[in-house]
Amino acid sequence: MKLPSIQAGRALSVLLLAACAAPLSAAPPAPAGKKPLTSAEVLAQAAPSDWRTLDPADTIYMELPSGRVVIELAAEFAPRHVANVSALAHGHYFDGLAVMRAQDNYVVQWGDADGKKPVGDAQRTLPAEFERPLRGLNLVRLPDADTYAPQVGFVGDIPAAADPASGRAWAVHCYGMVGAGRDNDVDSGGGTELYVVIGQAPRHLDRNVTLLGRVVLGMEHLSVLPRGTGALGFYEHPQERVPIKSFHLASDVPPQERTEVQVLRTDTATFQAYVAARRNRLEEWFKVPAGHIDVCNLPVPARLRPAPPPPQ
Amino acid sequence: MKLPSIQAGRALSVLLLAACAAPLSAAPPAPAGKKPLTSAEVLAQAAPSDWRTLDPADTIYMELPSGRVVIELAAEFAPRHVANVSALAHGHYFDGLAVMRAQDNYVVQWGDADGKKPVGDAQRTLPAEFERPLRGLNLVRLPDADTYAPQVGFVGDIPAAADPASGRAWAVHCYGMVGAGRDNDVDSGGGTELYVVIGQAPRHLDRNVTLLGRVVLGMEHLSVLPRGTGALGFYEHPQERVPIKSFHLASDVPPQERTEVQVLRTDTATFQAYVAARRNRLEEWFKVPAGHIDVCNLPVPARLRPAPPPPQ
Repeated sequence: MKLPSIQAGRALSVLLLAACAAPLSAAPPAPAGKKPLTSAEVLAQAAPSDWRTLDPADTIYMELPSGRVVIELAAEFAPRHVANVSALAHGHYFDGLAVMRAQDNYVVQWGDADGKKPVGDAQRTLPAEFERPLRGLNLVRLPDADTYAPQVGFVGDIPAAADPASGRAWAVHCYGMVGAGRDNDVDSGGGTELYVVIGQAPRHLDRNVTLLGRVVLGMEHLSVLPRGTGALGFYEHPQERVPIKSFHLASDVPPQERTEVQVLRTDTATFQAYVAARRNRLEEWFKVPAGHIDVCNLPVPARLRPAPPPPQ
Repeated sequence: MKLPSIQAGRALSVLLLAACAAPLSAAPPAPAGKKPLTSAEVLAQAAPSDWRTLDPADTIYMELPSGRVVIELAAEFAPRHVANVSALAHGHYFDGLAVMRAQDNYVVQWGDADGKKPVGDAQRTLPAEFERPLRGLNLVRLPDADTYAPQVGFVGDIPAAADPASGRAWAVHCYGMVGAGRDNDVDSGGGTELYVVIGQAPRHLDRNVTLLGRVVLGMEHLSVLPRGTGALGFYEHPQERVPIKSFHLASDVPPQERTEVQVLRTDTATFQAYVAARRNRLEEWFKVPAGHIDVCNLPVPARLRPAPPPPQ
């Protein structure tokens, strides 16, 4: 039967786009003695130590009507913005504010539409943190050419780029990256207005805005928001805005209410195997391995922390 | 006042992410005698002949409960699939079927979940059309390196890649591109099940699936669909599926009910100026021009056809 039944339809799509295990097909030669693995096999074989549990002090829970968005803060790239957003969250600044913009294939943005809410112990604006010294960063590089930067890879689970000639490094605008809106003055941002990338990576924004974190879980609560019909995706009517129930540091939330998220460590052999499996897909469905991978086409895997084994 | 009022907030965001005209700032040197333009200025100055109105015979209207999606078919790349999808549309095959999958940062997919609907004069499956000869195509190339292919650019408004060494060319998986799902057999697709890219370009699918069109208007009706909670974003319950009211060729729709869409011609000096403006953003907000552009970060502009001038 050629046209898939619903089961076959699911199988078709599993094979169309899956990271799922599937029989191996003609594959690139494996290193001597090593059988190449699919990305699903790599993750299934990963050791517990290949995963890192997010630090509650560096994690934000943004509660939307549809559910929780988990954002990891990226202090390596924007220490002052991260400290400021943490102070805003600790002071409940974003609670009761709203998403006021959703531009298709671009960004969702939230903050105080009236611009008058007190910031408490936080700052309204901060000096820009668009880039930083490459020195001191462990950039796990990807092997392929990038359209925009001399080098790309990951610092922890944050996608990043570097220019060895200038000795500078910066976080890059991949899907799910969170940044601080600003006005024309480079130092006019600070974190009171935030945006997240919901479409093709707008890499032309790299080094033009301070990126300060990454959504590691719950992107679907942001990416499905109705697109605004005003200019640049702003909601034309206040009642269209999506309320933010709360926006808190995980460390300010009782432990039993936390979401324990783990991300794959990128400074591991397991991650290298994962990259290899994504550069050349081995699943039977694939006929032409890409042989390359874009930094924004390789989200670092995240998962809920597995329950500890029961006591013996 | 540093924190924007609602008006200032809009202005901030206009400047954050806009293609809008703004005062020029430090800009790359312009060709002698030519002042560089922003992309908004390029489009504002485009001649009527720089725009091409879609041919109703190559255009699909997919009517969802929230509105119309306009898909241009790409016969240069997949002539048999385009003919088959046209036959399916002409025979009302998709009317009453449904979107059954929405996977975040990946694809939305629709078709016949039961796989039993007769296809009429169309075919259930077709030989794959993953690539074609480069010869005979007018690939308007982009100047920057691409991670995945030796050459990238546009054929009409379809993003495409080419390998001069092999003499082959293929459409690429950018946001909004529409393809024909298939099973493991490369010739098991045909267009009865279709998908559209709703996130970061999954370029590893290039040359592995037949791409047959591009959404030129109405992507927001697809990109906001609730993500399925089943494996790979399938809706777990039939009632979650999003019904397709109709899926018709524009030429099968009465003229007064058509949406006349125009796309910017890419084989023009205007498009070259547009590419230049997108590679190096001149708006005052930008501080570090990217100097490069990715083929999937450059959607070809589309608009509704302007009303003809009133009779004299």
